[in-house]
This record gives sequence, structure tokens and C-alpha cells, in this order.
Amino acid sequence: MASVAFGFEILHQDGCTAARMGRFSTPHGPIDTPAFMPVGTQGTVKGVDVGRLRETGAQIVLANTYHLALRPGEQTVSALGGLHQFMGWDGPILTDSGGFQVFSLADRVAIDDRGVQFRSHVDGTLIDLTPERAVAIQEQLGSDIAMVLDHVVALPNDREVLADAMRRSLRWAERCQAAATRSDQAIFPIVQGGLDADLRVESAERLVQLDFMGYAIGGLSVGEPPAEMYRVLDFTVPRLPRDRPRYLMGVGRPIDLLEGIARGIDLFDCVMPTRNGRNALAFTHSGTVRLRNQQHSMDREPVDATCSCLACRHSRGYLRHLFQAGEMLGPMLLSIHNLTYYQRLLAEARRAIAEDRFTSFVREQERGWEVDSETS
Amino acid sequence: MASVAFGFEILHQDGCTAARMGRFSTPHGPIDTPAFMPVGTQGTVKGVDVGRLRETGAQIVLANTYHLALRPGEQTVSALGGLHQFMGWDGPILTDSGGFQVFSLADRVAIDDRGVQFRSHVDGTLIDLTPERAVAIQEQLGSDIAMVLDHVVALPNDREVLADAMRRSLRWAERCQAAATRSDQAIFPIVQGGLDADLRVESAERLVQLDFMGYAIGGLSVGEPPAEMYRVLDFTVPRLPRDRPRYLMGVGRPIDLLEGIARGIDLFDCVMPTRNGRNALAFTHSGTVRLRNQQHSMDREPVDATCSCLACRHSRGYLRHLFQAGEMLGPMLLSIHNLTYYQRLLAEARRAIAEDRFTSFVREQERGWEVDSETS
Repeated sequence: MASVAFGFEILHQDGCTAARMGRFSTPHGPIDTPAFMPVGTQGTVKGVDVGRLRETGAQIVLANTYHLALRPGEQTVSALGGLHQFMGWDGPILTDSGGFQVFSLADRVAIDDRGVQFRSHVDGTLIDLTPERAVAIQEQLGSDIAMVLDHVVALPNDREVLADAMRRSLRWAERCQAAATRSDQAIFPIVQGGLDADLRVESAERLVQLDFMGYAIGGLSVGEPPAEMYRVLDFTVPRLPRDRPRYLMGVGRPIDLLEGIARGIDLFDCVMPTRNGRNALAFTHSGTVRLRNQQHSMDREPVDATCSCLACRHSRGYLRHLFQAGEMLGPMLLSIHNLTYYQRLLAEARRAIAEDRFTSFVREQERGWEVDSETS
Repeated sequence: MASVAFGFEILHQDGCTAARMGRFSTPHGPIDTPAFMPVGTQGTVKGVDVGRLRETGAQIVLANTYHLALRPGEQTVSALGGLHQFMGWDGPILTDSGGFQVFSLADRVAIDDRGVQFRSHVDGTLIDLTPERAVAIQEQLGSDIAMVLDHVVALPNDREVLADAMRRSLRWAERCQAAATRSDQAIFPIVQGGLDADLRVESAERLVQLDFMGYAIGGLSVGEPPAEMYRVLDFTVPRLPRDRPRYLMGVGRPIDLLEGIARGIDLFDCVMPTRNGRNALAFTHSGTVRLRNQQHSMDREPVDATCSCLACRHSRGYLRHLFQAGEMLGPMLLSIHNLTYYQRLLAEARRAIAEDRFTSFVREQERGWEVDSETS
């Protein structure tokens, strides 16, 4: 259905890897890819106002349909002008479908081809979610990119269970596509199939036949070893159309982003920078820094002398004090720092791709991370 | 001791009241008076970064010696460059002496003329605080304005107890003055004496003889009716020198600020805007707004259409959602809004004084507050 204002342009293709640098256009503006999307679960990136979020370099934000549908409800968001006005974010927004949360947070009651019944983790209400309803909710929210409802199963799992869930997700993707009515909202389907090459390939190829604006890869980074995730990308990404954006859901660590980019991924999201930031863990080019450590108590140096974020105008000693004293400003500043770090990493990755030196860029980054400032 | 860069200039004296508009110069810049000082108890105004704090219009911040001395300790703050660098706030800072907290938060062990012994509320350590030590700590912190250690007693109380505490506070003020060594730090003594006119007058007159850079009035807004507080100001303020700034400690509600200004007060501090903001209560020119109320759930209007703060770019419905969902952004935004409201109120008060219409300004404000938006 979607057509207005969407477009994906590959500006440069790396010579040695599948990495590509491009631009994805949406009704609320363009996204330079590969891109990292901060997670604004309940309509806010925790502890970061939208002005500060923009300053980190973020161009697109993710919000969670599951959480917003339960509280305050999609009708309320719609009555308050839609998700962009609600959050005060005028850039692109992607909403997930709620599938992952239904299977990870909710008390599930029943699942069949029609959809899934679950109890709200907020107030215990029995809720009925079908593919059509998932699309309708996201249309009310008004995000630029909506995700299909998928059937997520835990890993590891029996091949039969994985195959069933994957094929149900395929049927649901088709129903989501048929249900979509907004021309200003793109829908991305989600490739499933666990760690099984045949299932992943079947999922990807059948979704490609349905011709979506972009494609997501789901069900990864759920506890499997990173090498397994990379292996799945190795045989899945090549089955996706070159001229559409590819989104690796819920991933991940800085190294995972670079490994994903090298395999042709364009979009990422993860709570890692914000969740770790709230827990006093900072990401830097030379490894992670645990601000709660005693060693930082009189440290006048910033977390990262090369970073110009708000947190890095302060000493490590001050940041440690904020965490020790239980002050909100600690989580706020370190969330900003980590988001800034992720955005800088992606901006540098885009530059490296454009300059045909992505492989050496990844090697440099890895060398930096090995010098972990906590152990050196 | 202090002399460098301090100065107080009265730019306009109201014709009908004791209100005056002026400018207090400090080593870290000037403060337009009457002024409201946001409270940054542990070296941060809770939930507000220093850039956002500056945007509210704040020119000076208060920090609590008691809290900072216990955690992270004045040596740590000093090692991290002093309080200004520690917090990243390059404007003026006032530190209280810790007296009020010793008597309200700590487990007191002993008090005599020498000083007070108490147990830290953080880790139970036994701590010895003398007037000399209170000055030494504040000199290490490096604030622009330090407060003398005073003996605070609860109200109501026996006249004998009040008189004893007041006279001990006088002796301590003299010792603080003698102990001060920094020329870039002013010391303010604190007028005590409960609600008793004779004691207040004695306290004020004997402190004035000691010739300080400015004078504080303490021990008020501790539960007595507002009219009692105003009455104390009525007979206390005239005993303070006209050419020195006067600081009413820990006060208060918007109406209390205006009543204080009308009686010749120049400086105020209070946790009310931030504490209430964290609890979803917003101040406006037309009364308070409780954002948790159900009536705001689909309200597209901002908290205050005349306010240009960050919170007022959002709908009341969004702010309510943030509080209902337990998101940090709710307390952050409403703290900013309330601080902005207080700063606007003081800026408007200064303008009204300059234009000889302070009395009618106060009447206008009171009329606005009567139209409480929650009940209209």
C-alpha cells in the first residue's frame, strides 16, 4: 500500500564486504544507512528528551506497539495527534508489531492461525491480537514504518515448532499486507526460522515474493552465540532484494552492528545503549567503562575525551558520584553518551564504506575494544 | 574576608512596598534580584542537566554542604576541580552550612557550644561539625556564597530553647566569620529566633554588628501558618541593612515569594518546584495542575500555553502518560516547567518593581491562582 515519499537509494557499495551506504526516505525525512534506531518503548527514549536525542545524531526512533497499545492505548495516542506529535519527534518512527513482547512479556493464553490472546502485563486485561489488528493499531499510531505481527518462539527449539511458527508468520505477513490502508506507512515483514538455514531461506524467499518496501530479520540475539547469528545472516541476507532496506531486529553490541553491516544490514535497534547507560556502563572506542567502580571516584577525565556529548563535559568522578547518590542525572547523561557513541560508530561506518575501507575500519574498532579501559 | 568581585546594587526601590530590584555580583557573575535559586542538593538539580537549567532562566544554584560532605566528600569535590567544575555550572553557587540537615535528617548525638556530633544518614559514620569545620568544608567546595553553621530547633518550642539556640547561632556566626580565609567567598549569617519578635530582633541586630556581605533569615516555613512567617519578616527585615542582600531560606510557594519580595527579600530557595514536578504537580499562572488526573488523558493542550519550556511543547495527555507509565521524562519535563515558572514569576516581579507596579502585579497573580484549573 505504502508509496508516498518512500525510497531507498544505495549510494555506495563496499568492495570487499556486503556493506552498503545509502539513504532511506520516509514521509518524515531521510535516514542515512546503515542506521541505529534508539528505542523509545513507551513513547520516550528513557531519560532523554527529544532535543537531546536529536543531538546524539539519531534520525529515526523505534516505539513499541505492545506497550503503547496497553498504555495509554492507540486511541489516546491518535487523539493526541498521532505518535509524532505525542512524542514531539518530527523525524521518522518505526513501530514494532508487538509480536516479540506478546511472546516475551505477556501471559499468553492461546495462539492459533487467527491470532494470539494474552493478558496485559499492566492490568491483566485479556487482549486479542490478530495480524489485522496489529496493522490497525500501528495505523492509528501513525508510524512511518510498521512491522507485521509474527509468531516468535524461543531458541533453541524443535525444528517442527520453528517451522510452524515461521509458516504462521508468513501467512500473517500476507494478511498484514492485505490489511494495510495508509499510503504514508511502509510495512516490513520479518524473516523467521531460528538458526535453520532451510527455514530461513524459505521464509525470506516467500516474503520476497510478496514484495515489501523493506525486510526485517527477527528471532536473533536471543541468547545464541554471536557466531550463530552471523551464520544466519550469511545465508539469509543474500535472499533479500538488494534494493530494499534490511533491518536486523533487536541487535545489539557495537561489534554485532559492524558484523551485521558487513553482511548487508541497513537498520538496527537495541536497548543496549540506554539500558546499560542507566546501569552506569559506558561504551567507548577503547572498551566499556563501569562508572560505579571505585577507581573513578577522583578521576577528572571524561568518559571519552574524543566525545562531545553532554556527559563527556563532566569528569568520570562526577558521573560516578551521580550513580552512587542515586541521582537521575547519572542515567540521563550516560544514556546520552551511549546513544552518541552508537550514532558516531554508525556515522564512521558510513564514511568508511563510502571510502572503501570498511574492513580496515572494523579491524581498527576491534583493536580499540580489546584495550578495555577497566582492565588496562 | 570576602571582597573580590562581590557587590550589591539596588537599581529600583518600589514606592509602596519594601520590594527592591537589584543586582548582586559574585565571582561567577551577577544575579538579578529578587532571585530564586533552584536546589541542587547532591550537586545536581534532580532530573535537570545544567544546560536545561540555564534555559529555565536560573542564574544561581544552591547545593547542600551536608549531602556533599557525606558523599562524595569535600576532598573529592575539591580534587575534581571544586563545585563549579564538578557540577559543570559556571554561574554563582550558594552552599548552605549543613545546619538544617543535621537537625532534620541526621541522627544527632550531642550538641554544645563547640559544635554538633551526628551520625551520617548515608552510612552511620559519626561526624563532628563545628562552625570552623562548616566553613572549611564550604571553602573546599568553593561556592560563591557560604552559610554559617546555625543551631536549628523545631517550631513551636519554648522561648528558652529558642533563645539558647539563637544565641549559640550568634556565637557560631562570629566563629565562622573569623575562620573564613577565601576572598572569593561571601559568608551569610542566619537570623534565628522562631516566631518571637524580641529574639528575632536581637539576632538580627547582633549579626548586623558583625558586618556580613549579606544576611539570611532561617527557621521559617517549617510548618507555621504563612501569616506567622510574614509577621516575622515584618519585624525582622527592617533590622537588616538596606544595602545588603537578604535571603529567606527554604521558602517557598509562589505566593510566599511575592509576600517575601514585598517585605524586602532578595533571594529565595526551595525544593518545591522540583519536588512537586517529580510528583506530577505543575505550577501555572492560573493555579496548579495535577497531571496524573484522568481528565488530562486526552488533553491536547500544554500545561501552560504562555510557557515556552520543553514540557509545554507537549500535550498534557503526553505528560500524564509519562507519569502513568513511570517514565523518567515526566519528572524531568515537569521539573523544567516548574523551574521555568518560578524564574518567569521572579523576572516579572523584577519588571513590576522597576515599573512601580509591584502591588498590582501581586494582586494580578493572586487572582490568577484563584482560578485553579483543577476545579474550574
